Amino acid sequence: MDASTIAKPHDRLAADLADDLEGVNALIRDRMASEHAPRIPEVTRHLVEAGGKRLRPMLTLASARLCGYDGPYHVHLAATVEFIHTATLLHDDVVDESAQRRGRPTANLLWDNKSSVLVGDYLFARSFQLMTETGNMSVLRILSDAAATIAEGEVLQMTAAQDLATDEAIYLQVVRGKTAALFSAAMEVGGVIAGKDAAATQALFDYGDALGIAFQIVDDLLDYQGQSAATGKNVGDDFRERKLTLPVIKAVAKAGAEERAFWSRTIEKGRQEDGDLDHALSLLHKHGALEATKQDAIAWAHKAKASLGTLPGHDLRDMLIDLADYVVERIN
Amino acid sequence: MDASTIAKPHDRLAADLADDLEGVNALIRDRMASEHAPRIPEVTRHLVEAGGKRLRPMLTLASARLCGYDGPYHVHLAATVEFIHTATLLHDDVVDESAQRRGRPTANLLWDNKSSVLVGDYLFARSFQLMTETGNMSVLRILSDAAATIAEGEVLQMTAAQDLATDEAIYLQVVRGKTAALFSAAMEVGGVIAGKDAAATQALFDYGDALGIAFQIVDDLLDYQGQSAATGKNVGDDFRERKLTLPVIKAVAKAGAEERAFWSRTIEKGRQEDGDLDHALSLLHKHGALEATKQDAIAWAHKAKASLGTLPGHDLRDMLIDLADYVVERIN
Repeated sequence: MDASTIAKPHDRLAADLADDLEGVNALIRDRMASEHAPRIPEVTRHLVEAGGKRLRPMLTLASARLCGYDGPYHVHLAATVEFIHTATLLHDDVVDESAQRRGRPTANLLWDNKSSVLVGDYLFARSFQLMTETGNMSVLRILSDAAATIAEGEVLQMTAAQDLATDEAIYLQVVRGKTAALFSAAMEVGGVIAGKDAAATQALFDYGDALGIAFQIVDDLLDYQGQSAATGKNVGDDFRERKLTLPVIKAVAKAGAEERAFWSRTIEKGRQEDGDLDHALSLLHKHGALEATKQDAIAWAHKAKASLGTLPGHDLRDMLIDLADYVVERIN
Repeated sequence: MDASTIAKPHDRLAADLADDLEGVNALIRDRMASEHAPRIPEVTRHLVEAGGKRLRPMLTLASARLCGYDGPYHVHLAATVEFIHTATLLHDDVVDESAQRRGRPTANLLWDNKSSVLVGDYLFARSFQLMTETGNMSVLRILSDAAATIAEGEVLQMTAAQDLATDEAIYLQVVRGKTAALFSAAMEVGGVIAGKDAAATQALFDYGDALGIAFQIVDDLLDYQGQSAATGKNVGDDFRERKLTLPVIKAVAKAGAEERAFWSRTIEKGRQEDGDLDHALSLLHKHGALEATKQDAIAWAHKAKASLGTLPGHDLRDMLIDLADYVVERIN
């Protein structure tokens, strides 16, 4: 087995797309600048250079390349996708009142909420400028639809997160908004800019959708069983922040009256005491909620792989298929 | 003199464009809805139906009509402009921690900052969806450029507002961003969708730019000499909120050491005491700052009218010319 087959799929993608990724980074640096307002690059540099994995822009680059695209605009679209993602992170941190992101203090802590809101708006606007440069109306539609779905998902999450009536269908809708919509759009625009037909772009969309859902389910699962090193979060953060994620939704669905009262007190009312996290974990184990959540993540990863399987063979296609496996391997 | 010549230009425009405006309102109601997140229409309805004058969408409608446009998309563009404006208001209220807007409690007070941030994002995304429906790449470029200029102006305002080094050039840059960019884009897209040449669209842009600047200068002037009924604000709000607007910039430019120390204490350091507003007003009068500010507003209104004067005669053109006069009449 040589090094290329044992490296993580994410790193293999990055190596294969190195030139394109460099173009994306150069474009991001160029467009996050502001002639008039120096606060803007201060904030964006903090976030854009904080060591994010550029996963979403890589999806766009890989999608365009595996579809045979050889023009320049996949770089613009990849930068667009990263700008939308970064703007969303800035606004999320205001909404969540977060103090840390990727192991560093958040922008709203270093500067203030105002900077996070307004610089986020600037990046949104910049992302739309970037995509208009492609001159392709279809990708504009796809990405503006995705932006609306993202915002809608965030609002839905805000109102649903602490409501025990939130079921798996609502959870899925929230996850499609907050995570999967940008994954699927990132994949789809790669195919569209390459001029692929509806069947191919649908397969690319489906891969991104399923990968994004698997990715978020794994994230929510790791919050209850992961290591802090893997996620930058501590076990039980979501519980303490009263977020109704898939493991808890599954446990609530099987809860008797007494257990329901526990979840209502800790999540809905937020009256948490010492030992509550341990009790929550014991209920998750009792009902097999963590195992069931894991099986859901694996099923979505499988769906992602199956979607790409309909496309012609290509090294990048195979790396994306491996990426879907890798996303769920984090929970083993 | 019949009723049509004595009515306010804004009301004459609204009467002349009544059918189009109804179309805009219907489109706004339709697109501000959300199937999945009921919080969204709650917040937007509060703001969109709060009795704003629809001044910006009317500029787009009037511009398209006076250029002879007879397609359907000026309505989409007008709704786009209003959505961008509304999203900006929602985010401004978070940034300013405002409690009132148009005489009603702000969304961030009725719901929370989270709702204002996320629903604002939703409206931004919706505005981009709306403009893609026109299928016209030029208007997409103009409006996404305007959105970036708006955000940049807001960031610049945030960092410049309490800095005595802020001069008239920086003030103008802030005003172009926060106010004039959307006025000029609203006018320009009306001409572009109608297929007008560069000279005509430049004239429309220039009118919007100058009108927006006049509008904002008048707003800033009324804060020191207006009636609260005219603006929904109290005299001295900007002073209390430590905003360095044009009247104060002019007074600071003529201040000796003692007066400079006063402005530094009250605006830069924010240590305000009883009687400071009266003293500030006396300094503004002493240096003729209010009169000079008024003359600037009149000069910009004149520039707005001169720009439209290059276009062929049209009832709507004349109403827009009257509108420029009306904007500055508020200070007499």
